[in-house]
Formats: sequence, structure tokens, C-alpha cells
Amino acid sequence: MATETQETLQAEIAAQNNLINDLRKQQADSALIEEHRKKVGELKRALAMLQGGGSKDAKKKGERLLLKTPKGTRDYGPGEMFCREHIERVVKECFTTFGGACLDTPVFERKDILAGKYGEDAKLIFDLKDQGGEELALRYDHTVPLSRYLAMNGAINTQAKLWQVGKVYRRDNPVMSKGRMREFSQADFDISGVWDPMIPDAELISLLCTVLNRLDVGEFIVKMNHRKILDGIFEVCGVPPEKIRTISSAVDKLDKMSWADVKKEMMEEKGLDPAVADRIGEYVKHKGGPELLEQLKADASLMGNASAKHGIEEMDILFTFLKSYKVIDKISFDMSLARGLDYYTGIIYEAIVEASAPPGFKSANAFASSSSTPSTGNSAAAPAPSKKKAKKAAEKDGDEEEIDESQVGVGSIAAGGRYDNLVGMFTAAAAGDGKKAPGLPCIGVSIGLDRIFAIVWPKWVAKGMRSKETMAYVMAAGDGLLQERVELVAELRESGIKTDFLFKNKPKLPAQFAAGERDEVPFAIILGGDELKQGLVTVKEQKWELVDGKKQKVESADKGVKVKRDGLVQWLKSTQTFQEWSSGKWI
Amino acid sequence: MATETQETLQAEIAAQNNLINDLRKQQADSALIEEHRKKVGELKRALAMLQGGGSKDAKKKGERLLLKTPKGTRDYGPGEMFCREHIERVVKECFTTFGGACLDTPVFERKDILAGKYGEDAKLIFDLKDQGGEELALRYDHTVPLSRYLAMNGAINTQAKLWQVGKVYRRDNPVMSKGRMREFSQADFDISGVWDPMIPDAELISLLCTVLNRLDVGEFIVKMNHRKILDGIFEVCGVPPEKIRTISSAVDKLDKMSWADVKKEMMEEKGLDPAVADRIGEYVKHKGGPELLEQLKADASLMGNASAKHGIEEMDILFTFLKSYKVIDKISFDMSLARGLDYYTGIIYEAIVEASAPPGFKSANAFASSSSTPSTGNSAAAPAPSKKKAKKAAEKDGDEEEIDESQVGVGSIAAGGRYDNLVGMFTAAAAGDGKKAPGLPCIGVSIGLDRIFAIVWPKWVAKGMRSKETMAYVMAAGDGLLQERVELVAELRESGIKTDFLFKNKPKLPAQFAAGERDEVPFAIILGGDELKQGLVTVKEQKWELVDGKKQKVESADKGVKVKRDGLVQWLKSTQTFQEWSSGKWI
Repeated sequence: MATETQETLQAEIAAQNNLINDLRKQQADSALIEEHRKKVGELKRALAMLQGGGSKDAKKKGERLLLKTPKGTRDYGPGEMFCREHIERVVKECFTTFGGACLDTPVFERKDILAGKYGEDAKLIFDLKDQGGEELALRYDHTVPLSRYLAMNGAINTQAKLWQVGKVYRRDNPVMSKGRMREFSQADFDISGVWDPMIPDAELISLLCTVLNRLDVGEFIVKMNHRKILDGIFEVCGVPPEKIRTISSAVDKLDKMSWADVKKEMMEEKGLDPAVADRIGEYVKHKGGPELLEQLKADASLMGNASAKHGIEEMDILFTFLKSYKVIDKISFDMSLARGLDYYTGIIYEAIVEASAPPGFKSANAFASSSSTPSTGNSAAAPAPSKKKAKKAAEKDGDEEEIDESQVGVGSIAAGGRYDNLVGMFTAAAAGDGKKAPGLPCIGVSIGLDRIFAIVWPKWVAKGMRSKETMAYVMAAGDGLLQERVELVAELRESGIKTDFLFKNKPKLPAQFAAGERDEVPFAIILGGDELKQGLVTVKEQKWELVDGKKQKVESADKGVKVKRDGLVQWLKSTQTFQEWSSGKWI
Repeated sequence: MATETQETLQAEIAAQNNLINDLRKQQADSALIEEHRKKVGELKRALAMLQGGGSKDAKKKGERLLLKTPKGTRDYGPGEMFCREHIERVVKECFTTFGGACLDTPVFERKDILAGKYGEDAKLIFDLKDQGGEELALRYDHTVPLSRYLAMNGAINTQAKLWQVGKVYRRDNPVMSKGRMREFSQADFDISGVWDPMIPDAELISLLCTVLNRLDVGEFIVKMNHRKILDGIFEVCGVPPEKIRTISSAVDKLDKMSWADVKKEMMEEKGLDPAVADRIGEYVKHKGGPELLEQLKADASLMGNASAKHGIEEMDILFTFLKSYKVIDKISFDMSLARGLDYYTGIIYEAIVEASAPPGFKSANAFASSSSTPSTGNSAAAPAPSKKKAKKAAEKDGDEEEIDESQVGVGSIAAGGRYDNLVGMFTAAAAGDGKKAPGLPCIGVSIGLDRIFAIVWPKWVAKGMRSKETMAYVMAAGDGLLQERVELVAELRESGIKTDFLFKNKPKLPAQFAAGERDEVPFAIILGGDELKQGLVTVKEQKWELVDGKKQKVESADKGVKVKRDGLVQWLKSTQTFQEWSSGKWI
């Protein structure tokens, strides 16, 4: 609409307002006044849209819109997404190499599906507003939706390898720079079905090590324990059955609290006999490899407990398989690893990298352990900061309850375990007859993609990675040559060469070079009127190099080479630069 | 924990219940009773977890859990996801070929960011529950979050090509089989910045055509119109300024209502003068190509209107560019296309395919037009079913207000337009001084991935596509040979060959062949004790063929070939089968 329309609208708004005032004075019917007010609203919206300004109707003058993402969430721009897409591709490639098939579930679930699965952490679930209909909540992890899917689809999918990559949601205190978010991405791989003992378990650990090796996260270890050994230890030490889960949670804190503090919590908060606590302390201090298993096998009281004996035998088989998979050197058998979630029934594990440890814990042992908070489940969770610190930060920052970031590591970058009863719980609950349902044994791992990104991204920046894959930039030296540029661009793209050009009718050559440089495009293709008549174009290669860790354009007096326009695609694809760049030189 | 633990727990539960009864009889302190009740709860949960049954504490006996996904959402299993991942890969490849860079925004936004952007359809927004903190809502499209991002990041990103692929959410009536969902995936590509007229517009239409060509959706057309032409027509015909948007919405319904009905709505519901409506009718009945533009140019009254003249001149330039891009034959200049959203300011378009038209409209014209509902914005929306039909279905299905699916087509599979004022609106609202802010011209397209899937998936099923990419299945002919199998599997995977095996210690050969067949794996690699000693393995190629459109295993008496174990990777990769399957024979 033209400017005169704006004036018409303004005049009409004024007229309507006068009319409304008159109607009010005359104490006219309120429905009539309302009708005219609505019309004014319509007119104002139409005017605001024309003017490109904020709607004064929706927002009062002086009331400013806060332009930000919700707390604990963020946007990822081009460079970051280029890195994240690369991480996702590597993970997916590993998942399919291990025979996995993809599953996708909705981002929200019916609330009763999530209920009773996350213990204390249920308070972290994001609920949707009841707008009439079902009660819904955002998924907290991929494990519960997967189990719901397996239960829904019955026996058909019993033996399956399924992977999911997607976002999950927790209303936790965020530490953005360490990849500790309210919205974060997890890549899960799960194996379901009844198989011979420990083969799927070994397969999963092998997968985890393969993914972490290929992602270039640096040196890592997989801390591992077995729920049945842990439960056996608690029984042997004399922990009352109903206290086993809560004492297990206390043990899980050993990577960020001293034994003295954990013992105090066991006695004072959980009412455990000090002698029992001391006996536990003797066991959970152990970390090691296969030799630790031999030590446990020689422990008569432990081997006398059915649960512990079962767990130790399973670990023994697992270690044999892990040798065949050639990943045994990555394993740390850690008797203090407990993991918070109730649903684990067999081995449990967490992967940590040197880079992910918080600075305060660096000296504690070779790999400063900074594993997950209790009860954050099949996830890759950061260490829980003490409430005090979070509180302090909250006082300082007002609305933003940020945590003192220097004290928090990236945390475990992957975690998981065996959960043999979760699918059966769904099946039983769906039957509703109170009977036990046939279970479906499962084992899984969740890889925390934001944690991985927090480790990999600084390396990418240092290496001078690109944020686009464009290979050719088509320019005009002559009089614009827009049609000729568009035709060549379309042709190059058709052949699969990622190509761009400047959206100007008659752009200057330096402006075109600058645009190509901004996207770090290796081939400048320059069209000239006379050359085109001879069927030729000029190709000038653009080079970059790292100088003191910074990527710089290499300036060159090279005038470029003349290439036949008709053979350009083939020529480009045959160059060394094209091949190097395509296979990820600057990724 | 062992079975004895279960018995201990059951005994303890009984003892605690007795104690509670006693305490009640003694009218003991209620806090004390409550403490014991909590303990019973803990014990029961521990027992339920052990037994793998539903927690009787959380769910009463007889109260059945509904195992389903929320209304309007669904799971996608392995075969479907294999197809969806393929679609996504093709789309992303096109996006990067056109110089796009990736952006990712959170799945939810602050409510005030979404407010006032979707007109009547604001009622379809999914709100999050207020759990203390910000008011949030799930994103409705990618256009508004992108505009928020561009406004937040100021001038830095003014000239950009950005793409996003992700899920968006609308509380609409779902038609699942046609890809009309409450949770659905959109792939967006947007170009922002001040450029010479219509070059980005042509680039975007070229991109859209490239994506649809590569996705194999069948014949398609891109219906196109220009908001400024439409507004000019309304002005010339004598529509009062405040009625322009609502009359525009009425025109948008012409692809599913007769002109007589639309005219009736204009007169009766919107109070338009019948003579004005008739004049509009004369214009909007036109569809065509460049020749229609010539016809408009010859219309003196239209060319006398500033808005219409501007729009016609832009279309003229655009058509020239579309010829250079060689996509002009895909365009249908359709003067009845209006699109509901207020924020469009220039060209608007929708892509439809033959397959996407609802059956009832098939005979209407060459391409039964079945474009979007009004006000569903920068989306690929299905035609709105009449309220009556939805109501009727609702009565029939109770809770599930499904629509009569046979009457609904897939609808437009992509749509978009130019929106030059949206980013400026955010900037102005953030400044809050009521002044107009500098705008950022944008043009974008949203591709409806669920609609594309609804068209492509049946073709995949007919072609017998796989749901996994596994290339080799390692088997044992002899005595299990688990260690040997695991070592070979690990080696093949290390070399990038997607490999699997059966998780059994001593599996029978037929069981292993059956498992490999289930995943349609082309290479069976059979280990035998004696052969291994000679450094050999047997490779048996598995073949499939389509018989009457059904994929069947080709039975063969072929005993396979003996290959050196050490050269196996190289041997496999050099076979024709490996190369064909890797490059997507069965995708």
C-alpha cells in the first residue's frame, strides 16, 4: 500500500476515535462502542504493519520488548551450527556403522508417561499449559519415550538397536558456557532384547568408545560399575533394604564430596549406623581395572551374597569381551559410581574427558572425576553445584541464577546403563491388572552433544574452520553480466558445486571479492564480456593459512587461469584444492 | 538384589502397615503416622522396581495407563526415519549448495516474542505452564524466531542466507495420514538484507524448484502473486482501507470455495458493497504466466494505482530472472493467491504437487489447487476442512476430533513470501520509544517435511527401500567363535563398513542368516575354525529383487567365495554390490 494509504488510515483512526468519544458522551450501547474500538484496533495494526514499527496497540509506548531467548536456552549461529552438524554427522555415522536404526518420538509426552520415572528430579520437568485436552510435558530424556515406544509396539521390536538424536528439556540451573542447558541435545543408542549375557553390554561400550574417538574430544575414560555389585555391597555391609536407593545416591556424590562429608550425610540425613557406613567406605574407595575384579572375587563375604556374586560374574564376562573389542584400556572400574536413576538394573557407566573436569578437582586423581548429579538419569549431567554457590550467584545477578562457572566442569559427556524393567513397567501399567508384565531387557547410552560441542568448538575456532561449504563465487568483471552470472551459478549448482554470487545488477569487482572472502570461498570465477565471447572464464584460487592460530587470506598477485566455460565443472572438480576442501580441509 | 530381598521388603511392608494401624488406633501424632506411610511408599516403590511391575503406589489397581503419543503427534520407526533422514539430507544439501548457513533457535520462545504475529491463529499456539519464571510457548514457525534472532544480532547479520530445519507446533485439528500434524517439521531458507530488486526473490524460487526436483515429489507448480498488486486491486476496486486484510483472507479461500460463496462471505460477513466484490471477482479469476502480466500492464486503471504499478514492475523483473534460472515453466501467476499472514509485503508463493490435491478438487483444473488455510503463515498448511465435517467426525470418535481424511489433500508442500517489516517491528518494540526502526528486508520459504514425507514414503515402500544401511553380517559356522566374530566386526567397523552380528555365544547358522536377512544385509561373512586357521573367510552375497512390487530374497545355491581374512575390507569395498548399495541402490 502506498503512502496515501497511511494517511487515509491515520485520518480514519482519528475519525473513529472522535466517534467513540461522541458515543460515550451519548452513553450509547456498549456493544456499539466496542465494535468501533475493534475497528480502531484493526486500523492501528494495519498502520503499524505498513510503517514497520511496533504495534502500539499490543505494546504500550515505553514498554520495551525483551529480545532474548528463554533462560537456559540459546541460538546457535552459522559457525557454531557448522560444528554441531559435523558432530551430529559423526555420531550418526557411528550409530549406523553399529547396525542402529533411527527412531523419532515427539518432543512432548502425556504427563502420566513421564510420571514416576525421575524420582526427585520430576520437579525439573517442563509442563505444557492445560489448554483443554491432554496434560503434556516436554521430554526429560530419550530413554522413557523409547521405553514407551517399545511397550506400545509389543513383541515386534523386541530385538532392536535404535538410536535417537534430539533435544530434551530440564528446568535446571543453567551454566551456558559449559553446555549445561535447559534445552540440550542428546544422542541415544539403545539395544533391546534377550541376548546372551553381556554381549550387548560390550557392544554398547565399544560404540561409546568409537564415537568419542572419532569426535576428537581428547583423552577419555569410561567409569563403570554394576548395580548388582553395589546393592550386594550395601546388603553385606548391613544397609536396611528400604535405605538402599538413598544410600546409593549418597555414594554417587563421592566424586565431588569427601568421604567424611558423604559419611556424615549417610548418618545424619539418612540415619545410617556409623559402623555400616564405615564398611561401605572400605568398598567404594576402590577404582581400577580387571585386577580390582580379582580382588572382589577373593572377597568371601561378598561372593556369599547372591546379588554381588551375580554382578561380579557379569563384570568378569564383560571384561573378556571388552578385550576382544580392544577397549579395555578405556575402562575404569569405579566402585563409587552409583548413578541416581532408580531404573538401572545392571552395569552403569559414565564417560569423562580430561577437558571436562572442573579446575578444583584437577589434582584429586588422574582424571578429576566430575560425574553426573544424582538422579539426572540416563544423561550426561554436570556436577551439581552446592546450593550455596547457586544462591550467592542468584543474589548477585537478580533474575539470572547463574552458577559460578569457574567451579564447574563440562561434566560427564556420556552416560548410561542397563535397565531391564522399564519397558515391563509400562506394559504392566497399561494392562492395569496389577500383575507383573513380561519385561524387555534394554541397555543404552546418552551422549551429551552440548558437552561435546563445548569441548570441540574451541578447537574448531583455533583451527580456523569455516561456517559454510561454498566452493565457488561467480563474479562479473564487466558490465554486471547478471544473466550470464545467474546462468553459470545455476549450472554449477546443478552439477553439485556449492556456488554463490552477489545479488547486485552491476557490482564492483572488489565488492564481489570481499563477499567471496567473507565466506572463505576457494574459487573466484570471473566473467568478462570479451572472454565469454571466446568461451572462456577466469578462475582465481583463493588461499588461506593459519598465522599464529589465526586464519588469514593469503594475498597473491596471481592473475588466475583461463578455463573453458563449457568444461568448467570438470576442471574445478579435478583440482587438488577442490578435492582437499571437499574432503574437509577446513571442514 | 536377589529374591530374598523381595521377601524382606514384602515382610517389612506388612510390618509397617500393621504399625500404622496400631498408631491410628492409639490416635498417635499424625506426623509420626505420615512418616511411616512415607516409609511404606519407599518400600513399595523399591519392590515394584525389583518386580518390574507398575508401581501400585502411583497407579491404583485397575487404573490403566494409556500408552500413546499426544494427539496430533506420532513416533516414526526405523523404515520411516530412514526415508525422513534421506529427505532431510537432500534438503540440507540443496540449502548449502545455494550458499546457506545453518541457524538453530530454541523450540520455545518467550510468549511476548510470538504475540501479535499470527492474527487469529494465535489460539493455536502451545503455551508452556507457568512454573515460576518466564512465560513461554512452543514456536509456531521458524520465521518469527529467525526475525527475533536477526533483530537481536543487529547489523552484523544483515546480509545473510540462513536455513533452519526443525519441528514447529500448532494446536490444530490433525489429519495424520496427510502429514497434517500438531508437531511437524519444517525446513526454512531465508535471505535477508538490502539487495538489488528481485534478485534474492528469484534465487529463492530457484532454490524451491531445485529442492522439489531433487526430492522426487512428482510434477509440481509454484503458485505466485504479489501483495502490492493484490492491495492495488483492492484499492482500485474500492475496498475501504481497513477491510483490505479481511477481504484478502476471503480471496485466499478461492481455491476451496466457489466465487459465489466467497462473494457471499465478502458481502454478508465483511459488509462489502456487491459492486466492489464484482470488480474484485473480475481480477482474481486470472491465472497464467508472463502473458497475464502483459494484460495487467495494459490495464490503465490498475497502472494508475501506485501500489499495483510497483508490484507489476517487480513481477516483470522477477519473470526475467526466472527465465535465466530456467524455472519460469514452473510458475503459475495466480491472482487469487493471497496467503493469510499480515507480515508479507511483496511476492507470495505456494508449491503444490498433483499428488497433494484432495480428490474432490481433481477435476477443477489441471492442478487441483489445495493451498493453505488463511493465516497459517509462512507454512505449508493443508486446506481447512469445513467446521461441519470436523464436528461430525468429533461426534463419531469422541475425544479424537479427526477429520474425514478422504476429503483432504496433502495441501501445499512449501510456501513463503517477502516480509520486509518483521525484523524492524522487533527492533522497534525492543527500543520501546514508539518510533519506527530501520527495517531488514527478508524473503523466505518453508518446506513442509511431513507433507513431503507423506508423498515420498509410499513410493519408498513400493520400491522396497531398506530401513538400515548395514553392509556386512558376520556369522560363525563352527563352535560360536564369539571372540573371532567380535574382532572381525570391530575391524570392519573401524574401516567404515557398517557391520552387525548375532549377540549369541553359539548361534546356529540359520538363525544368523535369518537375522542378516531381516536387516537385508548384502554380505554374509561366515567364519569357520579350519578356514580361519588358513587365513580365509567365506563371503556369500545376498540378493533381493522386486517381484510384483514386493521385495523378495533371491534364493541361491551359491556356496560363496573364499576370501583372505586380511584382505577382506579391500575385497568387499571393491565389489560391484558394495559400490551399488553404498551409492543408494536400495537407499
